[in-house]
Amino acid sequence: MHLPDDLILNAEDEVSIRQHLTLVALAKRPADLVIEVGRLLSVHSRHWLEDQEIVVSGRRIAFVGPRGSYKGEVRARVSYPNLSAVPGFGEVHKHIESTHITPEFEAALVLPRGNTWTCEASHEFANVNGPKNQEFWQKSRLAGSPLKIFIQPGSAVPPSAWEESGGYYGYEEQRDFLAHDMGTVSLDEVMDWPSVWNPENPGYIRMWGMIGATMEMRGVVEGHGSGLIDPHDLSAFAAAGISSDHEVWALEEAWERLSHGIFTELRPFSYDVILPGLIERLTDWSNIAFTTDDRSASETLEKGAADYNVRHAIEYGLAPEIAIQCATINPARHMRIDQWVGSISPGRYADIVLLDDVKTLSIRHVYADGQLVSEGKQFLGPLTAIDWPDWARKTMNIGRVLSADDFAIKAEPDRHTMQAAILRPFHWNEDFLVEALPVVDGLVQRDTERLITKWALVDRYRGDGAVAKMFWTGCGPADPDTALASSVAHDSHNVWCIGSSDAAMAKAVNRLQEIDGGWVLVHKGEVVAEMRFEIGGLMTARSAEAFDIDMQAFYRAAEQVEWMYKPSALNLWKPGFPEFLKFATLTCSPWRWVLVAPSELAPEGFVNVQSGEQHKVVW
Amino acid sequence: MHLPDDLILNAEDEVSIRQHLTLVALAKRPADLVIEVGRLLSVHSRHWLEDQEIVVSGRRIAFVGPRGSYKGEVRARVSYPNLSAVPGFGEVHKHIESTHITPEFEAALVLPRGNTWTCEASHEFANVNGPKNQEFWQKSRLAGSPLKIFIQPGSAVPPSAWEESGGYYGYEEQRDFLAHDMGTVSLDEVMDWPSVWNPENPGYIRMWGMIGATMEMRGVVEGHGSGLIDPHDLSAFAAAGISSDHEVWALEEAWERLSHGIFTELRPFSYDVILPGLIERLTDWSNIAFTTDDRSASETLEKGAADYNVRHAIEYGLAPEIAIQCATINPARHMRIDQWVGSISPGRYADIVLLDDVKTLSIRHVYADGQLVSEGKQFLGPLTAIDWPDWARKTMNIGRVLSADDFAIKAEPDRHTMQAAILRPFHWNEDFLVEALPVVDGLVQRDTERLITKWALVDRYRGDGAVAKMFWTGCGPADPDTALASSVAHDSHNVWCIGSSDAAMAKAVNRLQEIDGGWVLVHKGEVVAEMRFEIGGLMTARSAEAFDIDMQAFYRAAEQVEWMYKPSALNLWKPGFPEFLKFATLTCSPWRWVLVAPSELAPEGFVNVQSGEQHKVVW
Repeated sequence: MHLPDDLILNAEDEVSIRQHLTLVALAKRPADLVIEVGRLLSVHSRHWLEDQEIVVSGRRIAFVGPRGSYKGEVRARVSYPNLSAVPGFGEVHKHIESTHITPEFEAALVLPRGNTWTCEASHEFANVNGPKNQEFWQKSRLAGSPLKIFIQPGSAVPPSAWEESGGYYGYEEQRDFLAHDMGTVSLDEVMDWPSVWNPENPGYIRMWGMIGATMEMRGVVEGHGSGLIDPHDLSAFAAAGISSDHEVWALEEAWERLSHGIFTELRPFSYDVILPGLIERLTDWSNIAFTTDDRSASETLEKGAADYNVRHAIEYGLAPEIAIQCATINPARHMRIDQWVGSISPGRYADIVLLDDVKTLSIRHVYADGQLVSEGKQFLGPLTAIDWPDWARKTMNIGRVLSADDFAIKAEPDRHTMQAAILRPFHWNEDFLVEALPVVDGLVQRDTERLITKWALVDRYRGDGAVAKMFWTGCGPADPDTALASSVAHDSHNVWCIGSSDAAMAKAVNRLQEIDGGWVLVHKGEVVAEMRFEIGGLMTARSAEAFDIDMQAFYRAAEQVEWMYKPSALNLWKPGFPEFLKFATLTCSPWRWVLVAPSELAPEGFVNVQSGEQHKVVW
Repeated sequence: MHLPDDLILNAEDEVSIRQHLTLVALAKRPADLVIEVGRLLSVHSRHWLEDQEIVVSGRRIAFVGPRGSYKGEVRARVSYPNLSAVPGFGEVHKHIESTHITPEFEAALVLPRGNTWTCEASHEFANVNGPKNQEFWQKSRLAGSPLKIFIQPGSAVPPSAWEESGGYYGYEEQRDFLAHDMGTVSLDEVMDWPSVWNPENPGYIRMWGMIGATMEMRGVVEGHGSGLIDPHDLSAFAAAGISSDHEVWALEEAWERLSHGIFTELRPFSYDVILPGLIERLTDWSNIAFTTDDRSASETLEKGAADYNVRHAIEYGLAPEIAIQCATINPARHMRIDQWVGSISPGRYADIVLLDDVKTLSIRHVYADGQLVSEGKQFLGPLTAIDWPDWARKTMNIGRVLSADDFAIKAEPDRHTMQAAILRPFHWNEDFLVEALPVVDGLVQRDTERLITKWALVDRYRGDGAVAKMFWTGCGPADPDTALASSVAHDSHNVWCIGSSDAAMAKAVNRLQEIDGGWVLVHKGEVVAEMRFEIGGLMTARSAEAFDIDMQAFYRAAEQVEWMYKPSALNLWKPGFPEFLKFATLTCSPWRWVLVAPSELAPEGFVNVQSGEQHKVVW
């Protein structure tokens, strides 16, 4: 009897596996393993079943019943009479790239924390190398990793019509992604709102091509409704066929989304303003999920993964069983993958979290694909080995060595001051700011006293090294000849750089190119710290612990710099090392005026992504 | 601006419609209608929203918000400040053929009762004319009917490998059905259990072809788990990828299905033994739906449609809001059609049930596709006109006139008695019964004293008029020269006939052929009653009221006959006119020994559908 390896979902294998499982369930073929548990949470009825056994064949569950009831032959048996079994946790919306470690190391990090499946919100690596994105996310699984990654091709490839990146996803691409992989199940967060509602937007045809392909292939259209509060906007969002939102920042926003038929995905950093009220009001949690979105390996080591999302909700007073549903059956059902994950039921992958205390969500062991993968927080393997190819490693194509000139902003002849358009991080206003800036030697100058610095975006895909630059305020180094550059620039992931001199900026970006991406800090003219994200410029192929050691060293170097700061619209924007600038390059709703790397539709890069209006950066 | 008519779902139209709806929601294009309501049930949060307005464009909802909040232009406005709006009810598993009226008249019957969408469990007409089945169910909708029919191609076409019918559905057929219609969303009730688990079953490849095609096309595999109680059977059922069951006859059966991750669909005739216990135990109803399965137009006129399923549950003490969820969002989400139906949310069809009393589910008006379709129980239209073609009307192809000889069972030469295999309706035992029966003139005779009569199945598709016959007990006419024949014979829908003389049986079947199917009663040698089901031999193209008048007349004629009776395994099998014999021809689980019309694999028709064993009917 030959059975497929059951790693990547396709209909032919699925039939073979289920035909076999059916016979194992009926005790007509031997099973591989019986896992006896003290009790088991049936998430379909939100009820504890006492003294159960879970019979595993291959990577799946074949049988569930009272302890001792399975009458078939079994190769091995383990018993946990004092532990409570709950389904493996799932992430309904997570950018694994934001962990900054590659999928095989992500698996080692999150599996012991109960996270056995992830819907990969895939517009980060996809913007780096669109054609290879599906292959990228399948590699670790194909090598045997028990972490299941359900790929959600990004609607934001590129993020807006004014950006160019390493990927372009439209109707045909999306149709083919869904046709070729049953585990590719949706369209990730539709976030370029003007390209959805406005037929005049140059991204309209591409966006609706992806939405249409997803509908045609019976996929799920995920949303990103940040800033949508008015019932007209929320109605339009739902009317467009967008099924969910994770950009929920307040209790009323959550409530309004549910009232408009939108599945609501909560992130722990908003629990404080949402959960207490929701616990008071809500009697039906079936349209709620918890999710991570973005969380670095360092923060995961400190707080947890999907387990933290559940545990933290319990701490707010939510019943543990409901909190567990919000990370298991609810997201699985929403994403239409509940035939594979989300419950401890026959036919599903044998993903089981064994708790020694439910109330504190204390995890003793995790089984994934029927394998014991952890003892406490220790990962027991299998750690899959991947030799990442050059298409994943060599993604920085700036194409030339930059100089200070590339970052200079020229004044008009004979001017002593120039008017300058100014933005700040998370500037969501209708209009940009305007300041008069001094001119020296024909170049427009920064003004540290007004916290005005220079900000640039460098194309890293085409090879022409095109640079867009302007002045920003409320961020950046106060020290002279200092610059910070990174290839993590949501969501195009071009290179951004902020600096107090043009020469320091050039030095930082040039070094970033040499190390294949990541972070580079130039302080007072010298490169003082760097962090390699050699995979796609977004991730590193190292363990979370190794990543954390280097990242902490980088943070310590960055602490030596004096950073300018003003608060902004986003309350997650804090003083100190401005790591969050990696999100200040977003172009989706509610952003308006942004700087993008030079592109065909925005040659100078300064554009209002809601209206399409463009403007000079100095005049 | 040209918009498609939004009747049959396809991705291209869906995109056009949603692009338009998005602009209407934003008040950038005029809306057709605003419906103001006193309150509105948000089924995603199980919460009443007070004083709302629902803005309609075409057949869909564009906007939902507080009364007076929509800022766009509106062509018409209606106001129901004293009524409560809940979503149009849906049937998750219904054989419309069992109403016995065609879809346009079904719509007129069920719409005023709140039923705005139906998942058509499609193996009845499909067994009559498989190739035309999808077209059959689309006709009424294409003609403009606001009742949405989501076609579920039947896994039971034919019902077992030992039957031949007017349809044959395997991998290619199912793949094409799902590829060509977004409203064809699943595989209907997988019910031939041996063909699922047993690789030796001659139906195995066909059945798994259909299951595999459904998985490949991201459809939902529906189940029929009658008689599956043991955890091995239930585990095997779920392991096979079957997602649901409506064959739930006891509280523990419901509980066990939920515990095995199976969505559970309850029918009102089992509420008495299930609902009180479930109301006591269950805290999460999201995996429960209510459904009708089979209900004639007469019974629907008397009790109700989907509204009865909800109202009757409320009578058992279930909270009305939960009961309504069990007929709206729960089944819609399970069937993965909640983007179109199941809630009053933007993007969904404008299907709204307006209640003047929630507790008694008293329906004042129904809107479907944004049209007012009822005033109380009166249907206001549109009643679509369909000229049913010959492929729907002329489906009785017995091919010749039958005679008494066709129903005779010959004895071996020189025998005075013969051993005979005996079945009774709903005989689910491992073995058939055996009785010695007298021989007269070389033919084996009935024995009215032992309630033994003759039972036949006549092929009505091939045109060879082949007849299978045997002796049954506990049913049939006690009067002489009396016979009852019908073309409603679940699920092959060949012709069955039961009678006290072979001549009466021949007369009944011959007349049935002349009237294109339905029911014929021969009493003491004369045709005394008939009921035409001229569409597919299953339905009539008449209103429910017209159907009921004729059916009641048929029942009155049947009351003149003395009917033999013994109880059987099914508690729905009652004394009197044996209408329920139309279900005694089933061959799915838990049936074992059955009589089917002669086929290539069962030339005599007497077969054990679990084991494939065949036997003589006399010896």
